[in-house]
Parts: sequence; C-alpha cells; structure tokens
Amino acid sequence: MTERTIFWDYASRSISLIDQTLLPAEYRFKKCSTVEQLAEAIRRLEVRGAPALGVAGGLGIALSAAVSESTDKTGMLTGLRRDAELLKATRPTAVNLAWGIERVLKTAEGCGNPEEIKEVTLREAEAVGDEDAAMCRMIGENGAELLPDRCTVLTHCNAGALACSEWGTALGVIRSACKAGKEVSVISCETRPLNQGSRLTAFELSRDGIPVKTITDSSAAMLMRKGLIDAVIVGADRITDDAVFNKTGTYMHAVCAKHHNIPFYVAAPYSTFDPELSEADVEIELRSRDELAFCGDKMLMPDGVEALNYAFDPTPMDLITAVITEKGVFKPPFDRNEALPGRRDI
Amino acid sequence: MTERTIFWDYASRSISLIDQTLLPAEYRFKKCSTVEQLAEAIRRLEVRGAPALGVAGGLGIALSAAVSESTDKTGMLTGLRRDAELLKATRPTAVNLAWGIERVLKTAEGCGNPEEIKEVTLREAEAVGDEDAAMCRMIGENGAELLPDRCTVLTHCNAGALACSEWGTALGVIRSACKAGKEVSVISCETRPLNQGSRLTAFELSRDGIPVKTITDSSAAMLMRKGLIDAVIVGADRITDDAVFNKTGTYMHAVCAKHHNIPFYVAAPYSTFDPELSEADVEIELRSRDELAFCGDKMLMPDGVEALNYAFDPTPMDLITAVITEKGVFKPPFDRNEALPGRRDI
Repeated sequence: MTERTIFWDYASRSISLIDQTLLPAEYRFKKCSTVEQLAEAIRRLEVRGAPALGVAGGLGIALSAAVSESTDKTGMLTGLRRDAELLKATRPTAVNLAWGIERVLKTAEGCGNPEEIKEVTLREAEAVGDEDAAMCRMIGENGAELLPDRCTVLTHCNAGALACSEWGTALGVIRSACKAGKEVSVISCETRPLNQGSRLTAFELSRDGIPVKTITDSSAAMLMRKGLIDAVIVGADRITDDAVFNKTGTYMHAVCAKHHNIPFYVAAPYSTFDPELSEADVEIELRSRDELAFCGDKMLMPDGVEALNYAFDPTPMDLITAVITEKGVFKPPFDRNEALPGRRDI
Repeated sequence: MTERTIFWDYASRSISLIDQTLLPAEYRFKKCSTVEQLAEAIRRLEVRGAPALGVAGGLGIALSAAVSESTDKTGMLTGLRRDAELLKATRPTAVNLAWGIERVLKTAEGCGNPEEIKEVTLREAEAVGDEDAAMCRMIGENGAELLPDRCTVLTHCNAGALACSEWGTALGVIRSACKAGKEVSVISCETRPLNQGSRLTAFELSRDGIPVKTITDSSAAMLMRKGLIDAVIVGADRITDDAVFNKTGTYMHAVCAKHHNIPFYVAAPYSTFDPELSEADVEIELRSRDELAFCGDKMLMPDGVEALNYAFDPTPMDLITAVITEKGVFKPPFDRNEALPGRRDI
C-alpha cells in the first residue's frame, strides 16, 4: 500500500479518505467537503490510527480555511478555531488528532490574509502527511534489517498503512523487508473485539501481494510451539520508561514469544516514547461491553453479564527484544541506549 | 444448572434438549420426536459437548425403538441399526456419540421382543445420562478441594452443564466449590471463533447466580499479571501420555499461567485419558475459514485471505498442575500416579 490512505483532493477541494468501516467488504474512498463531514468520519472511525488522525486533523484545518467565506484574517481564524474545537471533540483522547490540528492552526495565525491562510494551512497539512510517510519508511528500513531473509512474522491489530498516511509502522517493517527482497509471510491475529487484524491488516497486506493468513488471537502460542513463527512485530500507542502500551493481546504474545525464544519487536515513531511516565501512571481505557456482546446482528453474550474490555495492555520491557523507530533500533534496558531520552534527560 | 440439558420427555415420548444455537439470546428446549429431528439437531450443533452427545446417541436409539412399528425383534433391530448409522454420520469424529449409540444398541440385542427393547433401551439411555451426571459431581467434588475459599477462576470455552447432561466438568468444579460455600468468581474467555465462552459459559454460570465476567481471549495474560486470576480450569477433549488436547487457546493460557505462577487445572472424565497415544499421534482438525471470516451478517476477513483455524491445541504436561477426574486428582508426571493407566498397563 504505497498510495495515501488520506489526502487532499485538489479537483473536488475536499479530503479523500479510505472508509475503514466498510473494509474488508468494500474498499472505497470517501470525500469530506465540509468539516462536519470530516468530524463525522472521525467519530464513526472511518479514519483511525494515531498517525492517520494527525493527518486528518491537519487537513481538517486546511479544509476549514478552504471552505471559509471570510474576507478578513480575524473572521477566518475565528472559524478555524471553532472547527478545531469541533474536530478535537470527536476523539478527545486522541493525542495525535489534537497535535495535527494545533500544528496547522498555528501556521494560520502567522499569515497575513485569508488567501495566504488557505495556501499555508494546506501546505502544512500536507507536510504532516509527508513527514509521516517518510518516518514510516525509515522505521521500515531500520526494522527490515532485523528480519531473516525468509521468515514468518506474527502481528497483532493494525499498525499498518491504514493507521498512517501510508506504509505503516509494524507493517512498514514487513513492507520494507519485502521491498529489500526478503520473503516474508505474515500471520495476522484477528484482534478481538474489533477485528482490526482480520479486517484491516489482512486486507492491506493481501492487497500488496504479501502472503498473509488470519488466526484467532489465542492460537498464536500454538503456532509458536509448532515452530511456525520467526518473529513478532507489533505497533505501540505509548512507551513509558518501563512498558509498551499497545492493543490488548500484545502482552500475551510477548509472554508466549519469550517462552518460545522468539524475538518480539515493537515498531513505532520515536515520539511514542514518553519516558517521563511509568506504567503505573497510565490508566487503561475500559471500553464498552457491547464490543464483546454483539457482532453484526449476532448476540454473543447474555444480558446481565459484564465484560472486562480493556483497550490496551502494558508489556514490560524485559519481554521486548527491541523497539524500532525512525531514529534507530533500541534494545532494552534503555539506560544502555544513549540516544534515547531517559528520565534525567528531559 | 442442576436440571438436565437433554432428557427423555415421557409425556410427549420425545427427546427434550436445550437448543444451544439459540443461546444466549433465547433459552428454549426443543423436542425431537423422530430420529431425523435428532440427527438434524446434532448436525446443527443444537446439542454439543462430548458427554452430552453420548447421552444424545443413547437416547436416539431409545427413540428409534419407541417410534418403531415393528412387531418382531428382527425388524425392530434392523430399524435401530439403520438409525444408529444415520446418527453416527451426523458427527463422524465424535467418539462419545458413537459410544452412546453402541452401548444402548447392544442392550437391545439381548432383548426378547419389541416391548422389551423399548423398555430396556430407554432404561440404558437414561443410565448414560445418570452416570454422566454422577461423574460430573465427583469431578466437581474432587476439584473443589483444590480451590481457595475465595478466588477468581479463569476458564476457556464451555466445559459446563451444557456440554454434559448436567453440572459440567470444569464448570462442575466451580459449581461444587460454590456449593461447598466457597466464594468463586469466574472470568470466562469468549473463545473465538465460535464464542462458546461468551455465549454458553457466561449464560449457564450467570443463570446459576455465579459471578461471571467475559473477556477477549487475549486479555487473560494481562489479568493474570494484574493478580486478578487465582487459578485456571479447563476441560479436555483427549489426554495422551504427554499432552492435553482441548479447545484452541488452552495452550496459550497454560503458558501464561506458568509465567505468572498460577495453577492450571484440567477437569475431565477418567475416560478422556488415552495413554496409548502420544501428542504426535493426534491429528488436529483444521476447521472452515468461514468461522473467522463471518460473524452473523458481518464480514470480518477479505475474500482470498486464508485462515489457519485449528479446532484444538495440545498442552504439554509440564504446564499442567493437575488433571481432575472422578477417580481422583492426578499430578504430572503421571508415572508417579499408580492409579493412572500407564502405557504398560493396557
């Protein structure tokens, strides 16, 4: 997947994005020609994934400027700020969304007039996407070197192009290894309860012609024992000084990889490191029981039974072989890695 | 759940069984008044679980006799044998189904006339159910002693009353512990891809007022690390001299339980032991990709992507704390357990 998953469409003066809620049944780009449409798309998870949301936020401000009818800078900025708040409220805990919005909004403030704002915000929003794409390529290249020439890699959830502007982080490593001529097959864990692995990862890899098979999350250990897995690569939502936070199930894979002596890699932007925090500082979101209780029109749980539906889990550093970033590959314990920001450095 | 899940209904001269395909949305008994109806119920998994299928097979032969219009022994036996083949063909790999059918069929052969066959086959079929119920109670009592007075137990799939004639094996241990006054809470893994944990285990435990919460299979390890799980109890489909075969995911839980120093128990009838076989002798059924690709009306996997959908996984004995049977509790390595049939004994 080398095409962009979200971009500015000059012809229709709108944001074009892959509607991920239709996948894998349908692969369709959706056009958002108003900020309200974009807000709805973010709210409905038509676009998801931290880096992709950063791009969406930035493009949202550019869209706000593009459709504005204000003829003076102050009026336009007022509209932009109102739209910024509207967009941020769609996913209040998505750090990247707010970051992309603020970054582009800031460039607008330095402009002289409405026309300049339209031009500058679009340029900056596109830069967010370009930088993300370049970063994923670097992560990919750094990680590709760690994989054997012929191997089967297990991954969990979707740390792929669909979560970024293109290429992906964990899946970027796999793509870069394939591009470098390595023969990589992928085992994609379906990733309950929202099935990002079977719906999205399997989709984007098979579309690129990379061999991929889907399994239930709980059969990963069995395949490791059978000698069918050479490495595990996952993404990360946040990395504290002692743990990697990622989609629930990551910890289980890490424990099982350790048991079977299989390398366990985390691929993520350098900005994912949050060394000021420790595992205990991070609260893990408990999501709705409905995600487990229903699937399509099917009821999977009796009424009155609760679900414990944690969105993420922490994996302690001693289970992680290396963290692959655009700035290099870091092996825990991190105090040996001088290039990595430590608690004392910040 | 102390009521029978499958039994002979004297009033309507039919087999009454809980239709498990309707659970958890609807709890309804279905009446099978012809062998064809029973065969369809088995085929559609309306009744499932090894012990329950043994009872179903036995009752099927009694039903065949009850509805037979033959006036001589030979004619009736011919009909019984034809129905036996029909029923066996519904689930050709279900050992217990064939066993229950043959056991009851054999008693018919010793009878003198059709009336005696009707009476004797029904008595024998009901004995199959009664013995299963008594066995589950013994497994329950033997296992209950192993649990602390207050604990949270994790279980996978459904080794419960719904898989037996009543009480259950793994869930039988939990029920017996509760009956003995222990405070037991249960974490039920949803058990992909068919969700027997969220659909059936959560249903039957909550119906009995036993506290139960459902989780995704892959979050078990996280809960173990948080100190929320005191023991794991699962059922077994087959126990060789070196491994326990059970629903896929069992091995993952065993690896994670070992990592967290949590006892891992298997509860199963003594007859589950197959000490003539080793792990390598057992072929694991690969089931349809559709089980992962669809859930209700929802498509979860793109066309063209394969699934690796193993029905069972083997867990080596060194990860198992004890096997709980109606004849006692056996701790690996088994050569220390003189009461257990060894390779040389058989």
